[in-house]
Amino acid sequence: MNIADLPTPALVLDQARFEQNLAAMANALPGARLRPHVKAHKCTAIASAQRRHGHESFTCATPAEMLGMAAAGLGGNLLLANEVLDPRRLGAMAAAVAAAPDDVRMIVAVDSEGTIDAAAAAGLREIVIDVDVGLPRCGCAPADAGRLAELARRRGLEVQGVMGYEGHVMMETDLERKRAAVDASVDLLHAAHAEVGGEIVSSGGTGTFDLHTRVTEVQAGSYALMDTQYATLVFGSLGQPFGLALSVVGTVISVRPQWAVLDVGLKALGMDHGNPSVDGATVWFCSDEHLTFAPDEGTAAPRLGDRVRVWPAHIDPTMAKHEQVHVVDGDGVVVDVWPVDLRGW
Amino acid sequence: MNIADLPTPALVLDQARFEQNLAAMANALPGARLRPHVKAHKCTAIASAQRRHGHESFTCATPAEMLGMAAAGLGGNLLLANEVLDPRRLGAMAAAVAAAPDDVRMIVAVDSEGTIDAAAAAGLREIVIDVDVGLPRCGCAPADAGRLAELARRRGLEVQGVMGYEGHVMMETDLERKRAAVDASVDLLHAAHAEVGGEIVSSGGTGTFDLHTRVTEVQAGSYALMDTQYATLVFGSLGQPFGLALSVVGTVISVRPQWAVLDVGLKALGMDHGNPSVDGATVWFCSDEHLTFAPDEGTAAPRLGDRVRVWPAHIDPTMAKHEQVHVVDGDGVVVDVWPVDLRGW
Repeated sequence: MNIADLPTPALVLDQARFEQNLAAMANALPGARLRPHVKAHKCTAIASAQRRHGHESFTCATPAEMLGMAAAGLGGNLLLANEVLDPRRLGAMAAAVAAAPDDVRMIVAVDSEGTIDAAAAAGLREIVIDVDVGLPRCGCAPADAGRLAELARRRGLEVQGVMGYEGHVMMETDLERKRAAVDASVDLLHAAHAEVGGEIVSSGGTGTFDLHTRVTEVQAGSYALMDTQYATLVFGSLGQPFGLALSVVGTVISVRPQWAVLDVGLKALGMDHGNPSVDGATVWFCSDEHLTFAPDEGTAAPRLGDRVRVWPAHIDPTMAKHEQVHVVDGDGVVVDVWPVDLRGW
Repeated sequence: MNIADLPTPALVLDQARFEQNLAAMANALPGARLRPHVKAHKCTAIASAQRRHGHESFTCATPAEMLGMAAAGLGGNLLLANEVLDPRRLGAMAAAVAAAPDDVRMIVAVDSEGTIDAAAAAGLREIVIDVDVGLPRCGCAPADAGRLAELARRRGLEVQGVMGYEGHVMMETDLERKRAAVDASVDLLHAAHAEVGGEIVSSGGTGTFDLHTRVTEVQAGSYALMDTQYATLVFGSLGQPFGLALSVVGTVISVRPQWAVLDVGLKALGMDHGNPSVDGATVWFCSDEHLTFAPDEGTAAPRLGDRVRVWPAHIDPTMAKHEQVHVVDGDGVVVDVWPVDLRGW
């Protein structure tokens, strides 16, 4: 089967570009230096490819991702980089560890007495203290980390270290400002770690992957697939170690002299970073099931039935909207179909 | 089960408000005057409720919605208000009609020779000519409608009329300007209809439902559930015939002195109309699995574990991200769970 035969909208992964992205990251952050974040792709087949490139520990954002990774045999070292209070989901994770203690390891982030109590009550054993390093989201005040670690130990939990995500720095385009901001965040994380202890100091993302010399592991995810926001905003100023590997392929379903319409709408795309891009064209707007675009001067006019690639502005929510991703080779032949099997919560 | 027992994020429908919305619309546009658009909710249980309020014909945006409606016994009069070229999907629709010709009727929109040929080749019988009434998306030039109708008849298709969606008018807040714009659109549609013939003149949406005196049916969908964009931008200036009936309920998973964090992120929300709203609070930003918010002055500080309602800015893509919707009564008791069974393409 070829791209031209796919029902559209269809999520398409360029195999060669994907492998280049994985190789570039494995070269920069080999083995356990990278703990790939599966929230970016929600796909155990992609996680398997990351493991083939040497990374055996993974980061997750939801219990569903944790349980799905374990069920797929990828649960040897999982970190839930998020706070969970739901006793059923915490219990399901504890049960997954208890069922296969040699094969499944689950560490969960906590940032309060309540999340510590919930983890302990569910029978989970390992935690990290989530520290606020400047992004107003989850994470305790750095000065509170030691108290929480002590509390967790009193509840019988093993405190494996600290994590802190400097999400406020990811889209900084000035390299020196970015470096300084990362350093400031890691200073906060180190101060917390001095009070907490443990072997893990976990931080970072695709936008800062090359600036982390003082943590034990980096949680990058988007690098494997990339999106236009990362490609143009971040790496536009810092070189291009990673390239766009994922698109949503659409069919031209309507053509007028001034514009054409694709069947790739906002229900097939993550829209929180704005409109997607089409090569050689200007995207006018997206509706639920449509994308209206106009070819740039010098670009051939779209014809009814043409297949067109749409490059998402944000990869994570785009992946989460599709049931499967089609892996294509350089000739556009579909060589594999991977389920997006870690969706939901 | 109560709202407080739901795993979060959870899609929640307020039964009373929903029924009020359905009743208000059935009063304004009774029976066949409204052809509810199921793209807004993608849920056959909601379509069934709309049928109980007297509407027996429905509008769809995808073949999956058409086939799902027919499978649910709601396919007596379906209009696919979108252009489709895929022969497999068109063939599946033709097969659904052929299998139950007394119970299933499918009319598809066409706007070109190519879409006419595709419908005819697949064995579909009924079409409407989709006319551009000012929104640069699908739809032929009004002056081309007669030629296409003639072409369709030569291909053996029954031409049932015209449709044209004035999407560019929906968010107009000035009533007089809106009325004039709707009139201009309907003028174009009438000019096309004069050349096309047929019984159907289909147009409109929730934002213009009360301004359509010259069409045979209105395609509104959002009115049943509503969202903050419609509620504040459109009906803020025109009164409030419909109210917010759908929210995404989240759990407070992290609390700091200046902010709190919910487990309702942008993967649980349609984000193309911007951030959602939280009553009595300011939403700072959404991440993949988080919403950071701050309570307004005078509002009680959020506590860990609190359940909080998040009001989406755009209902259609929000529904499409969830597998089920929980119907709750005035006491927050979950009285029903409806699958969002028309997702995908």
